[in-house]
Amino acid sequence: MKISLIGSGNVATHLACALYDLKHQIVQVYSPNCQNAQLLAQRVKAQPIDQLKKLQPTDLYLIAVKDSAIGEVAKQLASLNIDGLVVHTSGSTALDAIKHSSPYYGVFYPLQTFSKGKAVDFAQVPLLLEGSHAEVLQQLDILARQLSPQVYHYSTQQRRSLHLAAVIACNFSNYLYSVADGYLTGQGVEFDLLKPLILETAAKVQEHAPIEMQTGPAVRQDQGILDMHRHMLDSQPQLQQLYQLLSAGIMQLHTKP
Amino acid sequence: MKISLIGSGNVATHLACALYDLKHQIVQVYSPNCQNAQLLAQRVKAQPIDQLKKLQPTDLYLIAVKDSAIGEVAKQLASLNIDGLVVHTSGSTALDAIKHSSPYYGVFYPLQTFSKGKAVDFAQVPLLLEGSHAEVLQQLDILARQLSPQVYHYSTQQRRSLHLAAVIACNFSNYLYSVADGYLTGQGVEFDLLKPLILETAAKVQEHAPIEMQTGPAVRQDQGILDMHRHMLDSQPQLQQLYQLLSAGIMQLHTKP
Repeated sequence: MKISLIGSGNVATHLACALYDLKHQIVQVYSPNCQNAQLLAQRVKAQPIDQLKKLQPTDLYLIAVKDSAIGEVAKQLASLNIDGLVVHTSGSTALDAIKHSSPYYGVFYPLQTFSKGKAVDFAQVPLLLEGSHAEVLQQLDILARQLSPQVYHYSTQQRRSLHLAAVIACNFSNYLYSVADGYLTGQGVEFDLLKPLILETAAKVQEHAPIEMQTGPAVRQDQGILDMHRHMLDSQPQLQQLYQLLSAGIMQLHTKP
Repeated sequence: MKISLIGSGNVATHLACALYDLKHQIVQVYSPNCQNAQLLAQRVKAQPIDQLKKLQPTDLYLIAVKDSAIGEVAKQLASLNIDGLVVHTSGSTALDAIKHSSPYYGVFYPLQTFSKGKAVDFAQVPLLLEGSHAEVLQQLDILARQLSPQVYHYSTQQRRSLHLAAVIACNFSNYLYSVADGYLTGQGVEFDLLKPLILETAAKVQEHAPIEMQTGPAVRQDQGILDMHRHMLDSQPQLQQLYQLLSAGIMQLHTKP
């Protein structure tokens, strides 16, 4: 497929490189920031552009920009009378948000966390698809299965629910890792020691329901340790509040009838 | 070594099995609940006992009971005039809590999450040691290195800090997985799709600082998505509060000078 890439962030970069490795042709990479477009374009042998009106006709226009910019991109594409397939890659933006961009449009959402400097194995990434027409969905399905065996046809609402759950389970977990890191640094203790435990905690729920894998003082109702931890956080009221709220949540979840 | 095991929960079970596999002799397993003691004793060919006064002399008395019960166990051991080495396995209990139990005492804390029905590779488990005497520490060090290359001599305070950080990074993350699971079940969407993302989130921080790996709407300051997620949680005020607090935490952490 001839593909135009709109965006040059983490999702755009990982998708572009994966599609390029599959021998698809990335024709152009658009970014309002010319330098970002150039960096990615160089890696996938594409032409960098900093204006959407410079887009050449291709089979697929892949929008991988932040959610708040998708509407504006769709509007500009609409004025270009594109007839290729336009898809966005967002977990939370409706299919309809790009309905004026082209007669054929869809969603191609990779449910994974992408960071610069960390390679992604797309075979491990669930891909959630939505299409304006059955033919669009079929075309996206063929493309998606080249990247991953985990392909799902999900409605906007289902995709949004998953995205929200992903924020809770993953973005928030990473935040807790950061908080633990910051706390340990303040105590002169190495964060490195926590790494096997962090990995094991995630590994356990691959095969078991998380509610059955809960450990720690809150689920044991160990008031002595909970009190001690609260005192240890006396000088950090925000962290103390977080500790209390999450401990109370665990206790409540595990005392329900 | 001849070892007496005091306790029959998750930590006791995993430690007993690992030490048994290393050809140490587990002589007796104590639990106030006779059935629990029997179950574990059977697996490691030990004698189950339900009274501490039935303890035979051994080299090592391993206390793996909940934190709030350690003091009472130590008190009972003191009355038995034990002269073997007594150690507890708790992240948050002071070394001094067992100082009357025997002339020689210490701490042997495995920094990992143990659940029934999930095997543990001790080679991946950091072991934190403390001892009443240099000789005790040396003896525990030799035993620990049979289980894991990751052996650390940590003070009670350092160990407590690590335990608190572990609760934040791991027990709370598991809680967030449970919350995401519960939310998705309510939406008729499969939790399974989140599993690769959960694993990748934990894998990323093995090599990179968590603060650099943060993704999601809060760190992008994407107010549109944050607002949408808040509305999606209108009917679940507790979850909504959790979402708000953690999102605010991420934004604050990432806007600090």
